[in-house]
Amino acid sequence: MIDNTLQEIELAVNQSWKAFQIYSKKSLQERATFIKAIAVELSLTEEALINTAMQETNLPQARLKNELARTIFQLNSYADACIKGDWLEIRIDTAVAERNPPKPDIRKMLVPLGPVVVFGASNFPFAYSTAGGDTATAFAAGCTVIVKAHPAHAKTSEIAAAAIFQAAAKTNMPHGTFTHIHGASVKVGKTLVTHSLIKAVGFTGSYGGGKQLFDWANQRKEPIPVFAEMGSINPVFLLQEKLNQSAVDIAKMYAASITLGVGQFCTNPGLIIAIQSNALNNFINCLAEEIKKIAPATMLHQGIANAYAEKKTKALQQKNVTTVAESVAQPAQNQGQPTIATVNAKTFLENKILHEEVFGPYSLIVQCNNEDEMLTIAQHLEGQLTSTLMATENDIIKNNQLIEVVKNLCGRIIINSVPTGVEVCYAMQHGGPFPATTDSRFTSVGADAIKRFARPLSFQNWNDNLLPDELKNNNPLNIWRMVNNEWTKDSANR
Amino acid sequence: MIDNTLQEIELAVNQSWKAFQIYSKKSLQERATFIKAIAVELSLTEEALINTAMQETNLPQARLKNELARTIFQLNSYADACIKGDWLEIRIDTAVAERNPPKPDIRKMLVPLGPVVVFGASNFPFAYSTAGGDTATAFAAGCTVIVKAHPAHAKTSEIAAAAIFQAAAKTNMPHGTFTHIHGASVKVGKTLVTHSLIKAVGFTGSYGGGKQLFDWANQRKEPIPVFAEMGSINPVFLLQEKLNQSAVDIAKMYAASITLGVGQFCTNPGLIIAIQSNALNNFINCLAEEIKKIAPATMLHQGIANAYAEKKTKALQQKNVTTVAESVAQPAQNQGQPTIATVNAKTFLENKILHEEVFGPYSLIVQCNNEDEMLTIAQHLEGQLTSTLMATENDIIKNNQLIEVVKNLCGRIIINSVPTGVEVCYAMQHGGPFPATTDSRFTSVGADAIKRFARPLSFQNWNDNLLPDELKNNNPLNIWRMVNNEWTKDSANR
Repeated sequence: MIDNTLQEIELAVNQSWKAFQIYSKKSLQERATFIKAIAVELSLTEEALINTAMQETNLPQARLKNELARTIFQLNSYADACIKGDWLEIRIDTAVAERNPPKPDIRKMLVPLGPVVVFGASNFPFAYSTAGGDTATAFAAGCTVIVKAHPAHAKTSEIAAAAIFQAAAKTNMPHGTFTHIHGASVKVGKTLVTHSLIKAVGFTGSYGGGKQLFDWANQRKEPIPVFAEMGSINPVFLLQEKLNQSAVDIAKMYAASITLGVGQFCTNPGLIIAIQSNALNNFINCLAEEIKKIAPATMLHQGIANAYAEKKTKALQQKNVTTVAESVAQPAQNQGQPTIATVNAKTFLENKILHEEVFGPYSLIVQCNNEDEMLTIAQHLEGQLTSTLMATENDIIKNNQLIEVVKNLCGRIIINSVPTGVEVCYAMQHGGPFPATTDSRFTSVGADAIKRFARPLSFQNWNDNLLPDELKNNNPLNIWRMVNNEWTKDSANR
Repeated sequence: MIDNTLQEIELAVNQSWKAFQIYSKKSLQERATFIKAIAVELSLTEEALINTAMQETNLPQARLKNELARTIFQLNSYADACIKGDWLEIRIDTAVAERNPPKPDIRKMLVPLGPVVVFGASNFPFAYSTAGGDTATAFAAGCTVIVKAHPAHAKTSEIAAAAIFQAAAKTNMPHGTFTHIHGASVKVGKTLVTHSLIKAVGFTGSYGGGKQLFDWANQRKEPIPVFAEMGSINPVFLLQEKLNQSAVDIAKMYAASITLGVGQFCTNPGLIIAIQSNALNNFINCLAEEIKKIAPATMLHQGIANAYAEKKTKALQQKNVTTVAESVAQPAQNQGQPTIATVNAKTFLENKILHEEVFGPYSLIVQCNNEDEMLTIAQHLEGQLTSTLMATENDIIKNNQLIEVVKNLCGRIIINSVPTGVEVCYAMQHGGPFPATTDSRFTSVGADAIKRFARPLSFQNWNDNLLPDELKNNNPLNIWRMVNNEWTKDSANR
């Protein structure tokens, strides 16, 4: 695909801004109808989407079918959440005329920020790309969207974009509600993020890419929020009683999680921390046996495969790092070879290279001498999307200090399961302290993700008939609202 | 007061971090008890607070008494909101074992960010300073607080700090829960904001100060959120039918608002926009008569008085700007002289100097030729804390496009009142698009301000007895929670 020119981008951004003036005033029901229509259009073009994505991403058909189903589920789920309106955070404080001075009527709701630029993920050509979570939640919030297609799946992106254009046409959304831009060059991304009419950015990808967008956005005359999900190593703490009980089961569970989707998930467990013991040796031996049996598979594209090979080689070359197991089958071109390594805690603490994400089917086991060393490691890890505790109740109670440190470093804390698998539900936090994301206060999965693209606006002393429907006395949209400090769907009598 | 040394600051930050590990685990009830104890301690030292603040800020006794009462009200109100727990945004999605794959149990709540640095405001020695809104909401969120005292009222700050220390001691909060730092030098602020253990910043003051903190915070290895409220010119649009009906009443209302507290409020109406007409002439004449009668009064300190004189003189010297009225009485040293000026719309649009805040009892009337010019001005204003419409229903309906533009540029939109006076209630949005604040998605007034200092954390697959009380099945804290997509106080059966 040829990059759009800077003139084309300028036109597109202006059109998006113009469309925002109309689209932002569409009712919650109208926005939801549009978002659901996108889901329908995606279903209609399933075959083309799957076939093209298979060619562009090397992902297998079954995985892509699952991902497309997830994308359609997300669109419908966020459309429902849009109408339900909890994300609007409505607060109504009615007037108290008899107070001295009189208390005015004030009503607050979230309103959309403006045109949003979305940079899709290479590892999720559907669910976190063109018609993915960022786009759907921005539309739900009332924002217009400009997607910069990921160059690694630009044709797939074209097909998804066509579905969105169809949906927009069928539901009478203004021209410019959605815009699709191609750009392999950095200049395209920079032009979009630094344009004064762009008001927010969504991104899923590498630390380098996300941090660059974040810096551009904050160096603008008017800084804007960037929601960059930049991956993480997702530490897993194996606590002793649990490890003693279930070393083999844990090893099998983690062999599968580490190699799921050729390890190409941002929640891939890249770090396993445990105390030296016979049980740990059992775990390592069993994990090694499992990993040896798992065949290498083709990665998303050559760039990802090369990066995996390079970063893994670099990690394995570090002092005191030992390879525990590799798949017996040798990788063909662009395949990722499942690999497990180990290192002692002291070396890990001293060598920051070992804290970096190796994106692919790789995990590093850190062997500690004692609980203090395990705690010290937790205290020195950077922000993470997830952390996992393999632990009995006794383990949790006994390691209270460790648990508190682990809570502070991540966005989701899992007990006795794997971090891979990100549910689309209200309770999901997909985000975490920097550098996992650029803004730990928001999630990119689940309906609360809508709130990323909105800000509160208070209406003071407005007549009921002039207020937006969301804030009118009789609650015509039937939304839960906080009226005079109490949650209710009732009318706000004044 | 002597600046704290960098060694002292290093010790203080480390102590704050240590205290955070304990304070963040205090129950909502314990935090609220502490915050309410601060309110009690402030009341007990009212005389010293008022007398010292009178000397340091030149604010009159009545105003300071009001502000202290507001501060005490805020503390109690945020303590109540802390216990009520709506700010926790609890979401519970229970497990669905029969789904394929099984859906895990996931529960989400907000958790505190870490130690917070608060920079107090010169114009609010109590309500937005040492024991003010930022400090109270950070405590409610579970964060420890380091206040850098405003050098203009450092002694007042000492007394308020002593009240907080007393309250912390009486409610058994750990040493370091609150820290009070002095620093007239920029180095003190920079050291605090760039320290790796500081996780958020609250600030109320000038654009220059707030933007500097924002830049430091974003240039850190781990960027952190800065909530800087940097003031605004709070445009007031006089629409025609309303102006025709009520020119004299509006003029009287605005003469009072412009000069309230010597104009030293961030919501001071610094810009009035109207279309040329006889009614506008009436308004201007009446406003001029009112302003002439209002005596100059002493401003907060010499720096503020000098800045007011300089910025006002600069504005009045701009081409086509005419002084409409000044108070007849001449200002004594450090007094602010109430002043009204006017300019045509074309000049205003061309000259960005006229868009800058003149902090003090000053307002600029922009005279437009027609509605298009008024719209163009709205389109070219920067982000604002508030905007006000003086308008009949007909005006609102007729000027629909203008209203939509005005909504986009501010955090609070007022009809037929004045922007001064910021209610402490849930529905208040005190914040607005940049440069009014650095983060339009949050408020610094009202209980939602607690959310600035917290982030979501999901707990996946936890046993009920290990979960925080906020997330336990039987809802022991009796908080409104969203359970499986529905708001309830009921138990989350699983």
